[in-house]
Amino acid sequence: MDKISQNRDFFKADFEILKQIKTDKQKGLPAPPLQKGYDSNSDLIELPTVSKDILVKNNVLDCINDRRSVRKYSNEKISLSQLSYLLWSTQGIQTVRDEFSALRTVPSAGCTHPFETYLIINNVDNLKCGVYRYLPLEHKLLFIKTLANIDDKIDKATPNQPFVQGFVSKSAVVFAWSCIPYRSEHKFSIAAHKKILIDIGHVCQNLYISSESLDCGTCAIGIYDQNIIDNMLDLDGENEFIIYMACLGKKL
Amino acid sequence: MDKISQNRDFFKADFEILKQIKTDKQKGLPAPPLQKGYDSNSDLIELPTVSKDILVKNNVLDCINDRRSVRKYSNEKISLSQLSYLLWSTQGIQTVRDEFSALRTVPSAGCTHPFETYLIINNVDNLKCGVYRYLPLEHKLLFIKTLANIDDKIDKATPNQPFVQGFVSKSAVVFAWSCIPYRSEHKFSIAAHKKILIDIGHVCQNLYISSESLDCGTCAIGIYDQNIIDNMLDLDGENEFIIYMACLGKKL
Repeated sequence: MDKISQNRDFFKADFEILKQIKTDKQKGLPAPPLQKGYDSNSDLIELPTVSKDILVKNNVLDCINDRRSVRKYSNEKISLSQLSYLLWSTQGIQTVRDEFSALRTVPSAGCTHPFETYLIINNVDNLKCGVYRYLPLEHKLLFIKTLANIDDKIDKATPNQPFVQGFVSKSAVVFAWSCIPYRSEHKFSIAAHKKILIDIGHVCQNLYISSESLDCGTCAIGIYDQNIIDNMLDLDGENEFIIYMACLGKKL
Repeated sequence: MDKISQNRDFFKADFEILKQIKTDKQKGLPAPPLQKGYDSNSDLIELPTVSKDILVKNNVLDCINDRRSVRKYSNEKISLSQLSYLLWSTQGIQTVRDEFSALRTVPSAGCTHPFETYLIINNVDNLKCGVYRYLPLEHKLLFIKTLANIDDKIDKATPNQPFVQGFVSKSAVVFAWSCIPYRSEHKFSIAAHKKILIDIGHVCQNLYISSESLDCGTCAIGIYDQNIIDNMLDLDGENEFIIYMACLGKKL
């Protein structure tokens, strides 16, 4: 079977597969935690409570209608309140069911939510430039490290962008969503992977919608250098690696 | 390499692959049309103009916050105006650039939009039960066929749903998104497929958001019998096949 046919088969429903396999969950193996751990001495940043006060465009139909992929940004900073809302809308936890499962603003197959959200902060009020991770359980930011020459590093990780070369490094913040595939594989085994890709699409669409409501512009990024971005974010590239990105800034 | 590792590799960025291959577009082969054709004698149904008047919940933050996967529905019919808005929000065309490319309410990698939207109508005002296809270029519905024993057929196509058995057939309408992979393969070749799955996630999230704004409930469906659903919709299963579904009805 050629590669195109193999890839097309990857899309097809997993109904027969699931009947044939025993998942780790069915074997009684423990579920992975719903959020990646961190050092208790870490530098955590409080995020403001999410509120309608910051919305520039309230109406949902306007937000859907006006959404575009935006690749040019002003130099205006994003506020921490705006960032808080964008993170909540994409991965915010609303109800913790137990230590393995929580309801979020976006749906995920089997409520597995196999993602972590890394931010490469370039132009956000009151935050030094560098790499952060969102902690949905605490609704806080975990500071990971500063980055020297951040523009250059972002450009190298996201080469060959269409339409506007090098626009990613001109954005205020880059969302880089990693996947921890075992969170979904535990429940779905080899049927997990189609679901994970669809789920990250759910997440990114909410970023588009919430971004539009702030009069910010965002652009999803499917073209990036896997090794450079995983190395930049200290991910092992096997059990956790970036699967999708988006950059965001105030519209011109 | 085991199947889990192979599937994980499918997620990784296609940057190196794209440098090595020549796509059909690069070879100068013609792009496929942006919408599947239909017989000019077909029965077309006008869809009302999309308007804010039908929104029950206007605020975008409320829609994001209140969204859940809803598996129980009232017997109330969906109106044609509501259906029009739901179709527009998920696949509506806003600007036709040329015969191969158009901007829509949702983003798609390379603006390839490799989907068609089929509806299995069960409880929509002024529409007989059966199978329809959305025509985004015309913003009209194409009637395809009636279905006898529609509940039973839907249940057979979507067995083993979690939480509420058989809820799909109790919904007012089932959205069944097919993929025509060549629309994306023409531009991205073997790198198309990761993008297609993410893109259908974008689409479904907009259904969740717009559904919430109508006080309707929806639930994405990842578990379905591929052959049964493809046969029900007269799809060949190779060049066009269902990749994701969602059912929707008025909330209880």
